[in-house]
Amino acid sequence: MADPIGATAWAIAEGYIPSGSTGTTPALISHETVCILNAGARDADVRITVFFADRDPAGPFRLAVKARRTRHIKFNDLSDPASIPRDTDFASLIEADVPIVVQHTRLDSRQPALALMSTIAFPAA
Amino acid sequence: MADPIGATAWAIAEGYIPSGSTGTTPALISHETVCILNAGARDADVRITVFFADRDPAGPFRLAVKARRTRHIKFNDLSDPASIPRDTDFASLIEADVPIVVQHTRLDSRQPALALMSTIAFPAA
Amino acid sequence: MADPIGATAWAIAEGYIPSGSTGTTPALISHETVCILNAGARDADVRITVFFADRDPAGPFRLAVKARRTRHIKFNDLSDPASIPRDTDFASLIEADVPIVVQHTRLDSRQPALALMSTIAFPAA
Amino acid sequence: MADPIGATAWAIAEGYIPSGSTGTTPALISHETVCILNAGARDADVRITVFFADRDPAGPFRLAVKARRTRHIKFNDLSDPASIPRDTDFASLIEADVPIVVQHTRLDSRQPALALMSTIAFPAA
Repeated sequence: MADPIGATAWAIAEGYIPSGSTGTTPALISHETVCILNAGARDADVRITVFFADRDPAGPFRLAVKARRTRHIKFNDLSDPASIPRDTDFASLIEADVPIVVQHTRLDSRQPALALMSTIAFPAA
Repeated sequence: MADPIGATAWAIAEGYIPSGSTGTTPALISHETVCILNAGARDADVRITVFFADRDPAGPFRLAVKARRTRHIKFNDLSDPASIPRDTDFASLIEADVPIVVQHTRLDSRQPALALMSTIAFPAA
Repeated sequence: MADPIGATAWAIAEGYIPSGSTGTTPALISHETVCILNAGARDADVRITVFFADRDPAGPFRLAVKARRTRHIKFNDLSDPASIPRDTDFASLIEADVPIVVQHTRLDSRQPALALMSTIAFPAA
Repeated sequence: MADPIGATAWAIAEGYIPSGSTGTTPALISHETVCILNAGARDADVRITVFFADRDPAGPFRLAVKARRTRHIKFNDLSDPASIPRDTDFASLIEADVPIVVQHTRLDSRQPALALMSTIAFPAA
């Protein structure tokens, strides 16, 4: 396998957690996810900063992604130091002390048929 | 936090605002959005140029994104110096005087179940 | 406006035109689109090569994108030198004599609620 | 045509195969796909490593993509040296001995209207 891959800072300009859902199981509740891959041999200490339209950023939210593991974190579940408001535009910056790869996904089930979107985040550093 | 991140010119080759919607609230009206993150310490002066298949470009549309803020702008809402026609192919170029990050999202609710798509834009400069 | 932006070769690894549709208007027929932005001052001569799983590539399909214009081309509509088969995996390489920006979008209306996906293509040169 | 295009290592941080489907044909079963384009003149020997949240990576899964061909591989169909569990977060690293282009797509038909997402993967090397 190659050397640790990815970047140590990533940005996602889109962010929005719909308050409504038609899903009947946790996996089908509307959610916004940041997927992090740490393909390297060292654990990653990750810091997420969340930006809003009309208030100061929230965070950093800190979490660990162990070596050679992936974590898919729902913004819905963030609670320390704050929770993310629903029905509110946001954006995020994801920084780590080792290279990681970041992808952004939303599942929206407000209407009775879910919608999905996903994109590799922007590697900023 | 890192130095200002992003690029000062971004391109989105896709663009199309469906005239129809099944959504019953503003958030569920079909829309095309450009999400801008200004993670830096200086306000951004942003200029959007909109390109069409068979006429000269429109714009620039000017808007501000304050330091450490995000704005999610619907192409539907642009009005100065022109509005964006519905059911018409377009593309856009987003330029700023400081580095920003740009992501493109569409919500389409023409049929009775919304669809979503999103991608980080192309960093052009 | 900046100098011509983009790249002169782009790749899209995904490609699939469903033969079925529930849409009742041309805009809602299942389709696969390559969106091209030529933000520069010179007309672009574009060549698309289409790759398959088990046969030689088709093309090049040639088309023009005028200076400061965008074209959103449906793979469904390509006919010279061949048409693209339905329900068949393909991929594409888009080359131009001036820098362009390329984005890939699919609208799938096989089931009675359309689905969308989109991504900026891979800038290869 | 240009020289071989792409990169020899790609990462996809998102991965999830829903166990449920409403689709009634194989093409409409929920699936997660890695689309690989080998636009070059030499066959590609591809190795996929799959990462999880709480166990060691699986793989490498080995497969060939012939010169000037594309292959769209469903993670659902991988079986050697292991199969990919359903309803489980994963990520993947795709490595090849020649440059390739990689794109990630999911079709989710758990609810009675499919959803799609797609993104060019992250070129890691």
